[in-house]
Amino acid sequence: MKTPSAAALVASLPFIRGGSVAPPHPERLTVENLNPSVVAAAYAVRGPVLDRALELVKQLEEAPGSLPFDEVVQCNIGNPQSLGQVPLTFHREVLALTLHPGLLAEPDDAAQGATGLFESDVLARASAYTNSVPSMGAYTHSQGITHIRKEVASFIAERDGVPAASVDPEALFLTNGASEGVRMVMQTLLRRGPGFKDGVLVPIPQYPLYSATCTLLDGALVPYYLDESSGWGLDVEELKAQLATARAEGVTVRGLVVINPGNPTGQTLTEANMAEIVQWCASEGLVLLADEVYQENIWNRDRPFVSFRKVAVDLGMSAKAGEEVENGGAPHLELVSFHSVSKGFLGECGLRGGYFELFGIDEEVKAQLYKLASISLCSNTAGQVMTGLMVNPPKEGSPSHGRYETEKQAILSSLERRARKVAATLDGLPGIHCRPSDGALYAFPKIDLPDAYVKHAKAQGAQADGLYCLELLEQTGVVVVPGSGFGQAEGTWHFRTTFLPPEEKIDGVLARIAAFHTAFMGKWSQEAPAGEEL
Amino acid sequence: MKTPSAAALVASLPFIRGGSVAPPHPERLTVENLNPSVVAAAYAVRGPVLDRALELVKQLEEAPGSLPFDEVVQCNIGNPQSLGQVPLTFHREVLALTLHPGLLAEPDDAAQGATGLFESDVLARASAYTNSVPSMGAYTHSQGITHIRKEVASFIAERDGVPAASVDPEALFLTNGASEGVRMVMQTLLRRGPGFKDGVLVPIPQYPLYSATCTLLDGALVPYYLDESSGWGLDVEELKAQLATARAEGVTVRGLVVINPGNPTGQTLTEANMAEIVQWCASEGLVLLADEVYQENIWNRDRPFVSFRKVAVDLGMSAKAGEEVENGGAPHLELVSFHSVSKGFLGECGLRGGYFELFGIDEEVKAQLYKLASISLCSNTAGQVMTGLMVNPPKEGSPSHGRYETEKQAILSSLERRARKVAATLDGLPGIHCRPSDGALYAFPKIDLPDAYVKHAKAQGAQADGLYCLELLEQTGVVVVPGSGFGQAEGTWHFRTTFLPPEEKIDGVLARIAAFHTAFMGKWSQEAPAGEEL
Repeated sequence: MKTPSAAALVASLPFIRGGSVAPPHPERLTVENLNPSVVAAAYAVRGPVLDRALELVKQLEEAPGSLPFDEVVQCNIGNPQSLGQVPLTFHREVLALTLHPGLLAEPDDAAQGATGLFESDVLARASAYTNSVPSMGAYTHSQGITHIRKEVASFIAERDGVPAASVDPEALFLTNGASEGVRMVMQTLLRRGPGFKDGVLVPIPQYPLYSATCTLLDGALVPYYLDESSGWGLDVEELKAQLATARAEGVTVRGLVVINPGNPTGQTLTEANMAEIVQWCASEGLVLLADEVYQENIWNRDRPFVSFRKVAVDLGMSAKAGEEVENGGAPHLELVSFHSVSKGFLGECGLRGGYFELFGIDEEVKAQLYKLASISLCSNTAGQVMTGLMVNPPKEGSPSHGRYETEKQAILSSLERRARKVAATLDGLPGIHCRPSDGALYAFPKIDLPDAYVKHAKAQGAQADGLYCLELLEQTGVVVVPGSGFGQAEGTWHFRTTFLPPEEKIDGVLARIAAFHTAFMGKWSQEAPAGEEL
Repeated sequence: MKTPSAAALVASLPFIRGGSVAPPHPERLTVENLNPSVVAAAYAVRGPVLDRALELVKQLEEAPGSLPFDEVVQCNIGNPQSLGQVPLTFHREVLALTLHPGLLAEPDDAAQGATGLFESDVLARASAYTNSVPSMGAYTHSQGITHIRKEVASFIAERDGVPAASVDPEALFLTNGASEGVRMVMQTLLRRGPGFKDGVLVPIPQYPLYSATCTLLDGALVPYYLDESSGWGLDVEELKAQLATARAEGVTVRGLVVINPGNPTGQTLTEANMAEIVQWCASEGLVLLADEVYQENIWNRDRPFVSFRKVAVDLGMSAKAGEEVENGGAPHLELVSFHSVSKGFLGECGLRGGYFELFGIDEEVKAQLYKLASISLCSNTAGQVMTGLMVNPPKEGSPSHGRYETEKQAILSSLERRARKVAATLDGLPGIHCRPSDGALYAFPKIDLPDAYVKHAKAQGAQADGLYCLELLEQTGVVVVPGSGFGQAEGTWHFRTTFLPPEEKIDGVLARIAAFHTAFMGKWSQEAPAGEEL
């Protein structure tokens, strides 16, 4: 408790002092007296390296030629359209028509409206959306437009090969990107205050949304380490050990976060591994938070994407909470799956669309999430429409199908080529080990930073990988994120880079990284104590 | 702390028990073991009355004619386009072009593109937006697109009559509606945990976003009562008294929320009153949270909208934190002002656009808000574009200006007529007192519920106003929000209704309310004890 203010003392002692002292010196808002959980939260993807990058962008604008590079290339974030990826035509046509009803107004008169410019399936889809709501400018149901939730439900059923009726649109929440859904679910799970020490199991390395959200909610981040030597494998024995440790420390672990395909690590899980995880969560009473936003970004064809939902259904678990109990007490999984329009081949980050699905979650718990959604009223309608378009693209035989498939395959095959090229090039550099990504949009190479450099960084109060990334930026203009932003095993160093620069630029970007890194290793390897083997 | 689980006991006593007991019975997620702050939060605008309304909508769809009305009319929420308000043409044209770059692709060939369908200022504005970012599908700066923040800064300068250079685009954050901004700022202000008991002064009646957000953040809601007898006046003596009481109770009050024009109360503040509030906040070290989302909804011409920012500037205060101190210690105001595309005459609720501006706030505090924004990456681009359009409409002399002005005036004058009609009609009913709204989108009539009814409701465990609103819904299909959802002086009863039903329907809606209410009063007044004067 803070020292009572002068005014409070006055108020509590009115008969002694009366009411006429000067007001207390007001306490200005400073970083020292803010919510310490906000101050403590860290989000490396947009951290100090990006801040410096933005300064360099300005410097280049104001004084072209003043830096050793012409362009800052943001490989720090999975933001495809910032690096030139073109949005899908069908999707944007429908979105535009949906938001400007006037263009749909004269369907029979192309000279008056714009309908003659669009294929019939574009017009039909736009009408389906605009007819499903009073207006795209109205607040929607707080879980999102019902028509679009039905499209998502059909998509899930088709993807997983389950009966359409088994996926309930009422279990879906459309959100401003997946991030908002993660925040809502974690806020609901994590209790605070005296008597509570709740936590969530989070992979290390992890996408820092999870650590930041834990910190903001005063929850305990219970780490489990992915095993780099087995391709960032997820070992259930490691989960068991970390859960036991956390429980021994008095932490009530409420959930397990799994990112599949992995971010930043790019691995995809085998179905057998997922089945183990599902059964373990069910037996331990942990809510499984399945971050599946990279489900369309699969590069290793031996590891196709399988949803946790499908694995649970294949194990006989039910989407409807309580059904297992009625059926005789089989293990019960509580699962929340997240998806987003920002990744895959849409890359529609700016529109902030996504959804989560509740599976095996109690109806009253759902009601609380609905209330939480209602306090923010609803997610944005452009993002909702894009979510519908993502899960329900033009069907085979429809006029826009051919163009859609061409655009989709061009993006995916280009991403795949770049994924392989980035991993192979980095892996060929001295002191860098980079496995090919099974999926997602990132490479996460391990860098054997020379001891002398680690000491040099430490002497400056810096993390060695953070300093490395800053130096890489200063010399090449390439923005990547240090491994310390995601967490990494003690004594190892990494960075995360996307492979999103366009094909005509990726060779140049890789050449700049290679030149920097080779010179760097040449310099710092020589700084080692004489006679020491490197 | 919860009882340690069996697994935790095993882990802590490995030498006694080994590791082979059955796993503890998993604790299913239930409403009893969720974050109690989530469970405790209430948001009446979308509460039980709306839940029942949505059931009735379904019933009408499935069995038309089965209810005493043909249509459910949602007067519970300021959602103009859900009740037929048409979006502004210029705004939606630009938005559509911005989101579908293909339509802008062939500016010289109307047969190929759609450019011939649009006025030149529409095309120019769309190009200005698309040229300001790599793509509307890319994450933007976490504070929002710089170009649009510059438009907002110009708008503020022009609105308040201050030099353009005195409004800094870097002090602006574009958000998913105003609600997200309120959440971010309150999360930053309110500390939690041992040693902290932070709170915020909130008006009663209030918009329940504030109480819900306080509850979610474990902050103390410090109420101050608006004075109904003086037209919901805001008396600084009341603020002082409530602050002193809160401080005496050990609460560190961090800020003051003022909603102007008022929601649900519809009053607008005088400039003199605002000056008092500003000086008081400055002297007490309270951050002023100015909810100014209804600034374009002004019905009482004697009370034009004046921003708190302008009042502060007129009092010699500076937007730049610390400048006053340099200038000799004049009182310093810390202000956050909120605005939204959802209200005014745009009513673009579904797009989720808005902004907040920091005024007199420390740069390091701003950096923390920036970090918080970055964890959610950015607000949605459609909402950002609509925010730009809201603050920078077609200029006089431009091709779209005439149509814009016509549409704007039609909406505003119709809203004004409806505002007067609703207040006058309700005020004329027995036992209802309803003052004309100075501003905003609501009437907040006081209902003198008969004692017998209050007792009847209490016997059912219900709030009398809540039950009244449910009965009104069941008999008329009109959805309003009970006063208890906003807070009201003990022993008084109110409801909030928007005046958003379209003009051709508003007489019917009012007639249904009048018929219900007259019959209601007839019935319950007779229930009073014989001989008692009513």
